[in-house]
Amino acid sequence: MRKEWRGFTGTKWLDEVNMRDFIQNNYTVYDGDEKFLAGPTASTEKLWGMLKELQKQERAKGGVLDMETEIVSSMTAYGPAYIGEGTKELEKVVGLQTDKPLKRAFMPYGGIKMAEQACTTYGYKPSEKLHEIFTKYCKTHNDGVFDAYTEEMKIVRHNHILTGLPDTYGRGRIVGDYRRVALYGVDFLIEEKKKDLLNCGCGEMTEYVIRLREEISMQIRALEEMKEMAKIYGYDISQPANNAREAVQWLYFGYLAAIKTQNGAAMSVGRVSTFLDIYIQRDFAEGTLTEEEAQELIDHIVMKFRMVKFARIPSYNQLFSGDPVWATLEVGGMGMDGRSMVTKNDFRFLHTLENMGPSPEPNLTVLYSSRLPEAFKHYAAKISIITSSIQYENDDVMRPIWGDDYSICCCVSATQTGKEMQFFGARANLAKCVLYAISGGVDGKTREQCGPALRPIEGDVVTYDEFIPRFMNMMEWLADIYVNTLNLIHYMHDKYFYEAAELALIDTDLRRTFATGIAGFSHVVDSISAIKYAKVNIVRDETGFPLEFKTEGDFPRYGNDDDRADDIAVWLLKTFMTMIRKHNTYRNSEPTTSILTITSNVVYGKYTGNLPDGRPAATPLSPGANPSYGAEKNGLLASLNSVAKLPYEYALDGISNTQTISPDTLGHNDEERTKTLVGVMDGYFDRGAHHLNVNVFGVDKLVDAMEHPEKEEYANFTIRVSGYAVKFIDLTREQQLDVIARQSHEKM
Amino acid sequence: MRKEWRGFTGTKWLDEVNMRDFIQNNYTVYDGDEKFLAGPTASTEKLWGMLKELQKQERAKGGVLDMETEIVSSMTAYGPAYIGEGTKELEKVVGLQTDKPLKRAFMPYGGIKMAEQACTTYGYKPSEKLHEIFTKYCKTHNDGVFDAYTEEMKIVRHNHILTGLPDTYGRGRIVGDYRRVALYGVDFLIEEKKKDLLNCGCGEMTEYVIRLREEISMQIRALEEMKEMAKIYGYDISQPANNAREAVQWLYFGYLAAIKTQNGAAMSVGRVSTFLDIYIQRDFAEGTLTEEEAQELIDHIVMKFRMVKFARIPSYNQLFSGDPVWATLEVGGMGMDGRSMVTKNDFRFLHTLENMGPSPEPNLTVLYSSRLPEAFKHYAAKISIITSSIQYENDDVMRPIWGDDYSICCCVSATQTGKEMQFFGARANLAKCVLYAISGGVDGKTREQCGPALRPIEGDVVTYDEFIPRFMNMMEWLADIYVNTLNLIHYMHDKYFYEAAELALIDTDLRRTFATGIAGFSHVVDSISAIKYAKVNIVRDETGFPLEFKTEGDFPRYGNDDDRADDIAVWLLKTFMTMIRKHNTYRNSEPTTSILTITSNVVYGKYTGNLPDGRPAATPLSPGANPSYGAEKNGLLASLNSVAKLPYEYALDGISNTQTISPDTLGHNDEERTKTLVGVMDGYFDRGAHHLNVNVFGVDKLVDAMEHPEKEEYANFTIRVSGYAVKFIDLTREQQLDVIARQSHEKM
Repeated sequence: MRKEWRGFTGTKWLDEVNMRDFIQNNYTVYDGDEKFLAGPTASTEKLWGMLKELQKQERAKGGVLDMETEIVSSMTAYGPAYIGEGTKELEKVVGLQTDKPLKRAFMPYGGIKMAEQACTTYGYKPSEKLHEIFTKYCKTHNDGVFDAYTEEMKIVRHNHILTGLPDTYGRGRIVGDYRRVALYGVDFLIEEKKKDLLNCGCGEMTEYVIRLREEISMQIRALEEMKEMAKIYGYDISQPANNAREAVQWLYFGYLAAIKTQNGAAMSVGRVSTFLDIYIQRDFAEGTLTEEEAQELIDHIVMKFRMVKFARIPSYNQLFSGDPVWATLEVGGMGMDGRSMVTKNDFRFLHTLENMGPSPEPNLTVLYSSRLPEAFKHYAAKISIITSSIQYENDDVMRPIWGDDYSICCCVSATQTGKEMQFFGARANLAKCVLYAISGGVDGKTREQCGPALRPIEGDVVTYDEFIPRFMNMMEWLADIYVNTLNLIHYMHDKYFYEAAELALIDTDLRRTFATGIAGFSHVVDSISAIKYAKVNIVRDETGFPLEFKTEGDFPRYGNDDDRADDIAVWLLKTFMTMIRKHNTYRNSEPTTSILTITSNVVYGKYTGNLPDGRPAATPLSPGANPSYGAEKNGLLASLNSVAKLPYEYALDGISNTQTISPDTLGHNDEERTKTLVGVMDGYFDRGAHHLNVNVFGVDKLVDAMEHPEKEEYANFTIRVSGYAVKFIDLTREQQLDVIARQSHEKM
Repeated sequence: MRKEWRGFTGTKWLDEVNMRDFIQNNYTVYDGDEKFLAGPTASTEKLWGMLKELQKQERAKGGVLDMETEIVSSMTAYGPAYIGEGTKELEKVVGLQTDKPLKRAFMPYGGIKMAEQACTTYGYKPSEKLHEIFTKYCKTHNDGVFDAYTEEMKIVRHNHILTGLPDTYGRGRIVGDYRRVALYGVDFLIEEKKKDLLNCGCGEMTEYVIRLREEISMQIRALEEMKEMAKIYGYDISQPANNAREAVQWLYFGYLAAIKTQNGAAMSVGRVSTFLDIYIQRDFAEGTLTEEEAQELIDHIVMKFRMVKFARIPSYNQLFSGDPVWATLEVGGMGMDGRSMVTKNDFRFLHTLENMGPSPEPNLTVLYSSRLPEAFKHYAAKISIITSSIQYENDDVMRPIWGDDYSICCCVSATQTGKEMQFFGARANLAKCVLYAISGGVDGKTREQCGPALRPIEGDVVTYDEFIPRFMNMMEWLADIYVNTLNLIHYMHDKYFYEAAELALIDTDLRRTFATGIAGFSHVVDSISAIKYAKVNIVRDETGFPLEFKTEGDFPRYGNDDDRADDIAVWLLKTFMTMIRKHNTYRNSEPTTSILTITSNVVYGKYTGNLPDGRPAATPLSPGANPSYGAEKNGLLASLNSVAKLPYEYALDGISNTQTISPDTLGHNDEERTKTLVGVMDGYFDRGAHHLNVNVFGVDKLVDAMEHPEKEEYANFTIRVSGYAVKFIDLTREQQLDVIARQSHEKM
């Protein structure tokens, strides 16, 4: 047994990578309360103070503090860099993406045009030398995609029935198992990958094997470079971490390698809390660490996660507002053996929101089960109520599918840590698909024949019998072009922008999921319900185009625990997923889908006409799986019940539900509110629901923050939107208005 | 009908690319003799004189006159350049690869290491900037290949049982249909490719379709750049050529695009002679061109083909000695309708060897049939006898397979012009495979277990019954790893060094052949014959390794028209080809094989031990399909008969036979010699043989040239070696000795 592994038990993890075996054998369940937690150290306060000042400067400069234009980002592109002058000794966890805090790196491989546009948007002049290199000699992902796109794909993209396709940005959603760096050291990981290369393929050189062999070689080089990167900061990560501080640092170096080489939409951290607790516990036992020092380590690595920045283009920012990076990090969860996996460290991560105030990043996610220790559930709920910075996901529905060592790879999508990657796939706007079914594929905004020229509805009323077959045909077409567009994009991403550093920390023989997504979900459900249960009259313009709908009579709406509507919701999800599954997917990946829009619901809505459910043209779609604005008439619990009916098995990429509850609805004091919130979540998740974003504030606060963003109290005012958290004042006014418009539950 | 097409007949070729239809409808058979030919013009003599002087300087400088180190070669990398100061007006065909005649371009995409090594070998310092770009940002073909190679592949490569794999150089062997540029102009070709892109795939985005779509887009860009390149020289090639001079120039620009962007081992010109004659005939009819001017056009384009240069590395030069580029160009051939395709232009191309003296390039190839016009056969034979610069290939065996518009894409391999590409594949050393069968896969030179550890022959005698199953097993292994190594190489070549300019001039829906090759053919045949018909005793060294063979008794040898040996030859070819065919080949290409070594027989021989047929270790293997040195006892015709028995259908990539005949054997005067040679070829090819290199000189001349390379008469002394022609004095002394050692037939 290596000296760095002293005191650890278990056998399987010793001679091959098996993080789960290590964790299961060594973690210490904690079912106590939060009283043990320590406040911020002087170093933490000083560093966080400096960082807050930098964030202020960043906002004052229009959202970007500094940008690189001359150096292509790589693990070893820069020398050592720290938060401030002379803070090297204060930082318990070191390493920045570039040579300065909050400075954004130059990453051209996803697309040189985008990298340059990101610079010029913020007044920076991109390097002419790099322009020459990446236009004359090196092809980039975006160029590859557009070389292969069909005319139809371009039309579909232009008409925004597919939006947010990862063809102009790194696909992200790949969570390297950064813990491996700490437990094994990089040399061991290199040896394992060398064995994999040796055993990759039986000698029959199919393209599948050739590509994989090349990729493993690239991964090995990435691991070598990771060591170089750590050396720049004075660390040798070739060997395992020897104590908690090294474990935190080694793990962060793994993550730093990822964010120095990729600018994926989501660059998640993964499930690191329980793992790190094992090292902290050992240090405690060895008498080399105090609780205050342990909290400081967690505060400092979280500070680093709060600092992750990427250079983005305006169209990206419109979709994903508020500069998110999805440094998603999980706490909580139950083991497959029935033990809680909550450790003291899970408290520590939540406690960073107290020690350093609320923050959108890291995207803190509680893997929820009603069986979690009560004290932990209460602490999480309490922090939610104070900060609105936490999301909850149902461990009980995910565990049977992904085991007990999964991570969330973006907003809400589970992925087996170190054993899986995801081909991310944006969203299909099914609300538009409803309109195409009526118009025969003609887009209401561009008046182009975007969908196939199928027979439109020609009468004055949208009848159910006429509508459903048309909608089915149109959805078949959309599923087809959607999957094929993604197949093409991911082929090119692998070809031009392969994630060597992240995949070096994932098993070679990995599972690949192929994540599609649905936008406009609730509006489709309610529109179909209107068509079925009421009379939807078509108002045509002078050209005969079905421009508006006048719906006579009442109809059930999704979000009221009414099976008539909710059954349509289940049918819609199952039907779409079945259509997606028909198609071949790139690298034989497993198709999944999500009901999750992030903030793209606003952009999607802009391009979507009037709908039969009464939603006016150009207004935001309801986010994720949320019921439509104004549809929920029966209170919070009825709304949650509707969402909980959606079968997770058909939306393995996630079903996002974002709710805002006024504090008074939950109770009259913090204790009461906490209890109520825990009760609400126990009930919601026990029904099989997948996800909940919890916001606890009243509309008044939002309006005040929108009008007075300069107030100190709003500097870090964080809210949960579909899939992530964001500083409210960083949203566009349009999106702020959207958030304000959403249902804030005043009754249970 | 476009004005550029005035006077042309036929319909199919008018609205889609159909070169064959155009040629068949418009060419003028010529069955007269060579008396019409014109001598060189003053311009030709002046330019050729300058070029000879440059060639002299090149030789004086060690084989390379000048090299680029700072600019990556591309179609538009340089301004206009000419053979000499003020020769612009003299050159009827313009365009150089770089900014100076004979200066070699810098082409890093095949492998930056190789491109740099080529520079340093000749004392040039490669650019640091380009080094950074092609190591830090852009990956090259060679790097991709070595990332994916298995350990076994590296061992096999290191032990030279596979050699000449195109992993360190451009694969070449792709003949763009350069005539298309002249007949259609580039704009039409772009429109056709755009249609292809529109119709590429049904929407189902398999990797096959995605890659092809990207490639078509790259081809379209290459065509656009071709126009830019022509503009640099003051020409607009967007529209068709209007007369013979433009046709020659347009066609050359197509070829120039290829040699500016690729450094494939073989960069062949193709079957252009009959096509260009059509334009010349029209100009004659219009009274705008004289025979002297027509010859000048052909002389000038041939001069350009003589100037093609690539920067090569020493290991490449060892394999392919004498700086060949395989600018292979065909004359002769019969149409499928029974008409001869010989035109006056076919005479003109051969006549360049008189007007400007012998030359290895372009690699002039007569597509032979005994039914060709007698006068043409005699003229070709006459030029052969004078220059030893021509090869002959059997049109009667190729036409049924490739039609009547094929080109030779390297040495001897037929390919349908504009409808096919080849994945070139170097050679497997089957002679070594014989030794591995005896040693159980242990290499005699390195003593590594290179082949599989199969049961060796353990006794003191190689018996036929023990040998054959072992040899079959070993050959199965070799065929397996050979095909898979090539699969990998061609995947990477497509990925990192795609031939956009050449493939832009080939149909999108093209045929792909997968060319393997055999080295050591005659030695394997004779060794098996020895094992079968004589007694082959093993002489083992102190470790028991089978180091030598003492063969008792006589045995029949291949090359004497003895069916006992020749049947083994046929069996060997069929067996190997059948084993090759078992495997999946990259992009579903059609596997073929060749018996063709080029000059690599010397390097192959170096790494091959003593053989049962008596060939000593480290001596050159017999080249191509040639009988072994000293084996031929029954004269030229018996030797030819043996080779003619090999079924072309099993070696569609070609069966190369190189013969040297002393002038006196052919007759007492040129007329007699010509007649005899024609008679020999009629007989040889009517028996179904595929190829013949004809050298007519005595050994004395070779010895004298080796000893006195400085003599003026030897400056352009050209000989045919397996697969191409070479200036004898440009061979290494080792290879010169090999050529001298070969059988020079003194009797028929």
